Amino acid sequence: MSREDGKSFELRPIGVIKESDQGSVLKLFPAYLGGLKGVEEFSHLWVFYWFHEHDNAEGRAVLEVHPRKDPANPLTGVFGTRSPLRPNLIAMHLCEVREFRPEKGEILVDRLDGKAESPLIDIKPYLPYSDRAEDLRLPEWAMTPPSS
Amino acid sequence: MSREDGKSFELRPIGVIKESDQGSVLKLFPAYLGGLKGVEEFSHLWVFYWFHEHDNAEGRAVLEVHPRKDPANPLTGVFGTRSPLRPNLIAMHLCEVREFRPEKGEILVDRLDGKAESPLIDIKPYLPYSDRAEDLRLPEWAMTPPSS
Repeated sequence: MSREDGKSFELRPIGVIKESDQGSVLKLFPAYLGGLKGVEEFSHLWVFYWFHEHDNAEGRAVLEVHPRKDPANPLTGVFGTRSPLRPNLIAMHLCEVREFRPEKGEILVDRLDGKAESPLIDIKPYLPYSDRAEDLRLPEWAMTPPSS
Repeated sequence: MSREDGKSFELRPIGVIKESDQGSVLKLFPAYLGGLKGVEEFSHLWVFYWFHEHDNAEGRAVLEVHPRKDPANPLTGVFGTRSPLRPNLIAMHLCEVREFRPEKGEILVDRLDGKAESPLIDIKPYLPYSDRAEDLRLPEWAMTPPSS
C-alpha cells in the first residue's frame, strides 16, 4: 500500500451509531457535544462513519469490485462505487433527522439500518447550493437503488 | 480530545490535488490507479480531501464557529457547518468531471480552487437516488452560496 509522502492522518471516532425502535441514533461522545449547537436547524445531514468491519489489510487493498456484489454489474474501480471495500473506509450517508436530543448528544435519523456500532467520524449539513448535481451521466447499474 | 474507546483510524493519502490552467486535477498515486476503472462513466464525483493546514491540536479542538467566518452568522457547532476546523478534517466537495486521464491517474474537475496540494483521501460517485434531499429545512445563512 503506497503512501507516497510517507504521511498518514489520524481519524478519531466522535461517537457511535446505535439502533432503536424509532430509527438509528447518532450518539456523540460527551467531548463533542459542543459541535451540535444549531444542528437542529437542519432537516438533512450527511453522516460519516467508518466501515470498521473491513479495517484490515485485505479490505483496504481492494481496488475493483462488482457493484452491489452482483457479478452482472461490470467490474468497477472502488472510486466509482460506494463499496465498503476501499483504501480509506469512509462511509457517507444522507439522513433525514427525526428527532434532535442535544442534552443526550443524540440525533435520531432514518436509514442507517444495519450499521449499529459503527464509529461516527463526522456530521455535515446538506447544503442545497453545493450538494445538488443536475444533468447527470452515470452507468446503468447506478441509476436505481439497490433492490434490497 | 476524547477517544472513548481508545481507538483511532488511519487515513492514507491516495493522491493529491493539483492546479492547472483547465481546472483542478485529482492526481492519484500509482498504487491506486486500479480504483479508477469505470469512473469515466460518471459525470459527477464526490471528492474527499484532508484539511491538512488545520491538522494540529488547535484546529481539531474547535467545536463552534461563525459560519463563513462572518460574525453576523450565529455561532454554530462545527457539525452544522462545512468549516475546515473540526475534529476530523474531512473535506467533501461535489465536482463535475471535465476530462478523464486514466493512463496518468488524473481527473480534471471544476471547483476546487485554492485547494492545490491538499491530500486526496477518497472519491465516490454521485448517486441520484441516495444523494438528493427534498423538502429541506435549514438556517438562513445556509440557503445561499457564500459570496466569495
